[in-house]
Amino acid sequence: MSQSIIFTNEINQALAQLLSEMDFNKLFVLTDENTAHYVAPKFGETLYTHNAINITIPAGDTYKNIESLAHVWSELGNNGATRRSLLINLGGGMVTDLGGFAASTFKRGIPFFNIPTTLLSAVDAAVGGKTGINFNGLKNEVGVFNEAKAVIISTIPLYTLPIEEVKSGFAEMLKHSLLKDSSTFNKLLAFDFDNYTPDHLLDLLEESVNVKRDIVAQDPHEKGLRRALNLGHTVGHAFESLAMQRLAPIPHGYAVAWGMVVELVLSHLMLKFDSTILHRYAQFVHDNYGAFHITCDDYPALIALMQHDKKSNRGEMNFSLLNAIGDIKINCEASEDDVKASLDIYRDLMHI
Amino acid sequence: MSQSIIFTNEINQALAQLLSEMDFNKLFVLTDENTAHYVAPKFGETLYTHNAINITIPAGDTYKNIESLAHVWSELGNNGATRRSLLINLGGGMVTDLGGFAASTFKRGIPFFNIPTTLLSAVDAAVGGKTGINFNGLKNEVGVFNEAKAVIISTIPLYTLPIEEVKSGFAEMLKHSLLKDSSTFNKLLAFDFDNYTPDHLLDLLEESVNVKRDIVAQDPHEKGLRRALNLGHTVGHAFESLAMQRLAPIPHGYAVAWGMVVELVLSHLMLKFDSTILHRYAQFVHDNYGAFHITCDDYPALIALMQHDKKSNRGEMNFSLLNAIGDIKINCEASEDDVKASLDIYRDLMHI
Repeated sequence: MSQSIIFTNEINQALAQLLSEMDFNKLFVLTDENTAHYVAPKFGETLYTHNAINITIPAGDTYKNIESLAHVWSELGNNGATRRSLLINLGGGMVTDLGGFAASTFKRGIPFFNIPTTLLSAVDAAVGGKTGINFNGLKNEVGVFNEAKAVIISTIPLYTLPIEEVKSGFAEMLKHSLLKDSSTFNKLLAFDFDNYTPDHLLDLLEESVNVKRDIVAQDPHEKGLRRALNLGHTVGHAFESLAMQRLAPIPHGYAVAWGMVVELVLSHLMLKFDSTILHRYAQFVHDNYGAFHITCDDYPALIALMQHDKKSNRGEMNFSLLNAIGDIKINCEASEDDVKASLDIYRDLMHI
Repeated sequence: MSQSIIFTNEINQALAQLLSEMDFNKLFVLTDENTAHYVAPKFGETLYTHNAINITIPAGDTYKNIESLAHVWSELGNNGATRRSLLINLGGGMVTDLGGFAASTFKRGIPFFNIPTTLLSAVDAAVGGKTGINFNGLKNEVGVFNEAKAVIISTIPLYTLPIEEVKSGFAEMLKHSLLKDSSTFNKLLAFDFDNYTPDHLLDLLEESVNVKRDIVAQDPHEKGLRRALNLGHTVGHAFESLAMQRLAPIPHGYAVAWGMVVELVLSHLMLKFDSTILHRYAQFVHDNYGAFHITCDDYPALIALMQHDKKSNRGEMNFSLLNAIGDIKINCEASEDDVKASLDIYRDLMHI
């Protein structure tokens, strides 16, 4: 499977070029109700030229479900899609995950493109081949690994994003930089959210997505190395779930940014990760993301959540940690005492 | 992906051996209501040893649907299946197709075994990696290509099968022999349904399944060569659909046996396939399967069905035909006149 990832702000031209190189008999475009109104028109000319058929699903993670999946399958079938048809997923992670799964399973698989419209989906969901839907109350409970034929990544859609969504995506870029090298990491820590335009992000975005692409290429089905990408996520997911239980959900990227503070503390305690870098990172997070408030009364719930994480096989707490920037160690098991100590230090670093 | 296909009548032992070589944390067994009662007990000891959790779906192709799929996903999830769990599909093609799809998509894929319990599923569905369900009124409209980790093929379950089901599976064996060589073909034409025990079939079955396995290995995703396996199926599917419209459904294998008569006639007309072999084959089919009755009034409906076959991209009639035994030509387009002439000759050969 060869995948084209194109970084450009000439998205219309890039799409026209990609379509001219593909052999397909019908074009379909999946959007949610938001992207249908705000983003799809930007591709109007190209899509119109190819008589693209639009399929729309309701916006929001709640609708990343089996009913929406069945709707996409039906619309493809009823509009005469064959194995030689092409589906373009135009939207955030919800649209690219669900559309990718629908395409991967319709007639046992038709090709699809992803055009992410949020920073988080550009840097995370759109690349790497994870597709799926929520099911039975669990996120991404069913799906397949299957890469988009092409991904067009641009910063154009970011102009209309609230700053919280930009910061949410930026957290995954921070993660990728920690998996790569100090120079990338330092560039991101120097980023100024108060004085930037989305165009500034395109180069950083390309560098970041390539980190993920290189890791996925070595381990597409998450047998080992790919778990590196879970840095910050064992704690991050626990924070997200706790926030849900409090009925005050937090953006995924924020949870990851805070989760990485805790996991860098763990990396320091268990693997001697440099404390200076830890402090610089924690300061950046504190200044730009604020803090997720916890007390020691939350520890038992957080530990229980980590023990039920997808990465856990037998109730242990499983982390992807760092020996140093660019030097990951997957499948680290931490004790309850280590985790509690890390949460204590997280609270100090976040001044709570 | 390495796949073990094991041909044995010591199924219990073979299963125990396979399980001892696998690293899994929980075992699940999918059956339909029939195989749960009649076949699963044969594996009782092995399954009990591993605390296998049974998941049952209603029997029959009608239930090869999204509701049964969701049921399997839920049962896996609610009983604590993880990516390291194993699903055994024990049943006919409906169970192996649906169970294979459920396993391939649960948490983006867990391993599965197939233990086919009909001759048709042993020779066709259980091997080759096609999984899926019916959807939107269409057979196998959604699914994925993904091979079972292991397939155990035996003739034990065949003892309880009605002769019609044995003949139905035998038709796919005839197809495989035509794709291979005259010696295999001649062995099958000498088969005597009035005087046999299932054990006689084990060697022939192994030879037959290996034909399919070799073809699939060269083209797992049906981009080209694998279409060889569609021999007899363009007409066969049209016969099946016509029979459904008449409210008098015919077994799939019978439809294929008759469809191959028409397609060998087409092979003779278009590619000079040897008419002696055609006549010997037609005689065998007539003697063992009887005939599917059609008149020239049925031709327009049959042609319309063939033009809407999955293999058709632009309304043409697409066939996999034979130059000679073992020498397939895929993507043959036949004219309406050729098809009508072949149907005429089919009726002569079938004495109708």
